[in-house]
Amino acid sequence: MQLVVIGIGLIGGSFAKDVKKMHPDTHIVGIDKNESHLDEALELGIIDQKGGFDALASADVVYVSIPVNALTEELPKILDAVDDDTVVMDAGSTKGLICEAVKDHPKRRNYLACHPIAGTEFSGPSAAIHGLYEGKTNIICEVEKTAFKLQERALELFQEMKMRIRYMNPQAHDKHIAYVSHLSHISSFMLGKTVIEKEKNERDIFDLAGSGFESTVRLAKSSPDMWTPIFEQNKENVVESLEEYIQNLATFKQLLLDNEFEDVHREMNNTNRIKQILKGIPLTKS
Amino acid sequence: MQLVVIGIGLIGGSFAKDVKKMHPDTHIVGIDKNESHLDEALELGIIDQKGGFDALASADVVYVSIPVNALTEELPKILDAVDDDTVVMDAGSTKGLICEAVKDHPKRRNYLACHPIAGTEFSGPSAAIHGLYEGKTNIICEVEKTAFKLQERALELFQEMKMRIRYMNPQAHDKHIAYVSHLSHISSFMLGKTVIEKEKNERDIFDLAGSGFESTVRLAKSSPDMWTPIFEQNKENVVESLEEYIQNLATFKQLLLDNEFEDVHREMNNTNRIKQILKGIPLTKS
Repeated sequence: MQLVVIGIGLIGGSFAKDVKKMHPDTHIVGIDKNESHLDEALELGIIDQKGGFDALASADVVYVSIPVNALTEELPKILDAVDDDTVVMDAGSTKGLICEAVKDHPKRRNYLACHPIAGTEFSGPSAAIHGLYEGKTNIICEVEKTAFKLQERALELFQEMKMRIRYMNPQAHDKHIAYVSHLSHISSFMLGKTVIEKEKNERDIFDLAGSGFESTVRLAKSSPDMWTPIFEQNKENVVESLEEYIQNLATFKQLLLDNEFEDVHREMNNTNRIKQILKGIPLTKS
Repeated sequence: MQLVVIGIGLIGGSFAKDVKKMHPDTHIVGIDKNESHLDEALELGIIDQKGGFDALASADVVYVSIPVNALTEELPKILDAVDDDTVVMDAGSTKGLICEAVKDHPKRRNYLACHPIAGTEFSGPSAAIHGLYEGKTNIICEVEKTAFKLQERALELFQEMKMRIRYMNPQAHDKHIAYVSHLSHISSFMLGKTVIEKEKNERDIFDLAGSGFESTVRLAKSSPDMWTPIFEQNKENVVESLEEYIQNLATFKQLLLDNEFEDVHREMNNTNRIKQILKGIPLTKS
């Protein structure tokens, strides 16, 4: 099999590693505008060679894991360059504008819109790991617009990686993901900011902070280059979720100011149900 | 050594386990208003016997790990009941009101005000683990008010547990901890609430949520019985930190609405420094 991975970081690199493990005969070509990432991926044996768009015509599978603003720009050009029998998948954290960008493309049937709910706060080829996708959900949008034979090829790989598949339309995806993913990142970044602003002596922070703080701000390590375009493309839903979050925080603050501690207790007690919900979430091995 | 643990949950139980491991000859008496917790602790071998306040007079060390509202009530009575040669330590997440409650007590010199920055989102004796305190910071307040010989006895135990000691006054403790601990819990609880309210179909949440969400809302599993009195006692600092957090979230939201994505990027980029800060935070083994 000929696999081309465009954007050879955590997501693309982990995909390449799993495919190589399951199909050792696969020839993997890496494309990345970051030359040092390409060299690193080659050294780490994640890809077999560096390449360019000329490698796309002969590819069976093209995996595009680049920031979502680059996706809307590059995806049409990628489809221009592929063969009729090539399946092109992405891993973008937004789906609305990306599907919109290719909706009238003559090779739309070659594209499968995907969002694997997998990742860590780390990035780059060195962050790529085997089994990143195992047990994780892969959200597929507008599956009906992809050629059946090409859907099958992609789904076989996902099944081999033990992913759970969920089908959704792009609008529902972007709305849900704003709440369960994008909002978490903003809450983490702003929590980190609030504490750093206060604790001028950063030594104090980690002397006093515990694993709870570490867990809550973990996502504030995430890449701004990746996340800024996600927030831009999903702005409407992200702002809505942020408004509801701010409102809930303001209500909680008012309960404290009003000494309504029974209500404070109730607020936390009602949210304790999250225990049962979280039991269903597969953790990343890294 | 005679050790009495009042409140035999995660914190008290883990303390008892470590002391027993380091000093197998220690006789450990457990006191808890929750009879089933006492029975559980006895079954698990965390304590040697159940007891009452009559056990305090003969104790070398008394470890009080109960909710902070119970601490301000019980600590004076505990000091009434101990011998001159007994050291009484607490593990409360607030220090101001607790130190205030005993400041004029004739046995104030028997009390060492402590806050070990250790814990998990779990509670009860079954959550107690060996090594919970290893590498963690223990904040000691008003050390000068504790009899030197009794400070020594406590510090020897902390050193054997490999804890890092930091000395602070109660007011500074409560201010810092509001930011690095209490605020994280509120941000987690309200994030969980926001998502649960939106995702009526909870099945959807864990189908779509990844480990990032899990990490960010982990603290929303925490015990409301423990946390409500903490927020009540540290209300002023918690409300201040909450206001700054809400302000930062509102500013971020406005940047999104104004399409100021360079500033959005800068906000996240500035907070990425949290990586270096977090490197210093010891993680809980559980």
